[in-house]
Amino acid sequence: MRVGVFGTGDVGKTLGSALITLGHEVMMGAREAQNPKALEWAASQGARASVGTFAEAAAFGELLILSTLGAANPAVLTAAGAENLAGKVLIDTTNPLDFSRGFPPTLAVAGQDSGGEQVQRLAPEARVVKAFNSVGSPLMFRPNLPGGPPTMFICGNDAAAKAQVTALLGDFGWEVEDSGDIRSSRYLEGLCLLWVLRGAIHGQWGHAFKLLRA
Amino acid sequence: MRVGVFGTGDVGKTLGSALITLGHEVMMGAREAQNPKALEWAASQGARASVGTFAEAAAFGELLILSTLGAANPAVLTAAGAENLAGKVLIDTTNPLDFSRGFPPTLAVAGQDSGGEQVQRLAPEARVVKAFNSVGSPLMFRPNLPGGPPTMFICGNDAAAKAQVTALLGDFGWEVEDSGDIRSSRYLEGLCLLWVLRGAIHGQWGHAFKLLRA
Repeated sequence: MRVGVFGTGDVGKTLGSALITLGHEVMMGAREAQNPKALEWAASQGARASVGTFAEAAAFGELLILSTLGAANPAVLTAAGAENLAGKVLIDTTNPLDFSRGFPPTLAVAGQDSGGEQVQRLAPEARVVKAFNSVGSPLMFRPNLPGGPPTMFICGNDAAAKAQVTALLGDFGWEVEDSGDIRSSRYLEGLCLLWVLRGAIHGQWGHAFKLLRA
Repeated sequence: MRVGVFGTGDVGKTLGSALITLGHEVMMGAREAQNPKALEWAASQGARASVGTFAEAAAFGELLILSTLGAANPAVLTAAGAENLAGKVLIDTTNPLDFSRGFPPTLAVAGQDSGGEQVQRLAPEARVVKAFNSVGSPLMFRPNLPGGPPTMFICGNDAAAKAQVTALLGDFGWEVEDSGDIRSSRYLEGLCLLWVLRGAIHGQWGHAFKLLRA
């Protein structure tokens, strides 16, 4: 599968490398086609890794992953181009974090809206699935925790898109819980804050949620 | 310990009965001192169970539990009386659920506020701890789930109050995760919705969250 990953941060690099490990082809997109972090990442990953602009990565990918800073989502999705997003599964890993009052952050968008809903509005023809937003990047691929595997909570409006992401999450070593349509991003982004708060309070970041089922 | 439980619904009865089982004395408070559901519950529980008004239950309890409908919180806490709440640990089990658009509900209070913060404002001299709000009543006491025990996420402004609730939750069979001050109710109430959504989507209600820790 060809995957376009938007973003050169820890999440983009982690997911990109994991997809390479699983045998997929990955183009990492950035504002500039010659982004140094993207080039360095691709050089470390071999022949199935490449770099490009957001638009080039969007055109390349059969599956797309949004892993830039949440605040950049409008600019990134505009740069990606609606024609390159249309009809594709777009995994939204971002959170609308507000650090203006320090750490821990709060949610800049909450209540009757969410970052995930904004992403779906920004890319109305994409099939947005919220995932990977409630755990840190070191645990995203093959998490090895006592009592695991952990559960990835996902949501989105398109059942087939969620089924595809569910299968991918299985390859990544996760159980999956479908929490409904994209409006449930409101709660998944709150779950991110619960994840962050444990880190902020205890100084420990190696944790993840699991849904215990009778 | 003497415990005042506000509310005669499933949560109030479940927590009241659990506390009786653990050897505590419980007064179930309702609007009317002779509430039939409270009387029936007390009759089933023996000598350590009693009934009273909200004010009588508040005066009786060293520990107080708010388990009425979230929409009733202002009326219940006013009826309980500020002088009966002052200085006491008040466990807020409620959620500000809005069923006006059908099922599943949404959060009537969200974004930069939460039900838990409202409760703390309504009872400013009580030491509010949010707990028991993200799981259904059948699992609140001695939950027996594969992979358990589950984790109760709690929050509140008073560390000693949270320590007391943490100990009680241990007696109930739960692990505990302190998610910070009462503002974290925003995320704990979102967690309630994730709990509800699994039930709404899958028709299964025997689930609970666990935090896996490295």
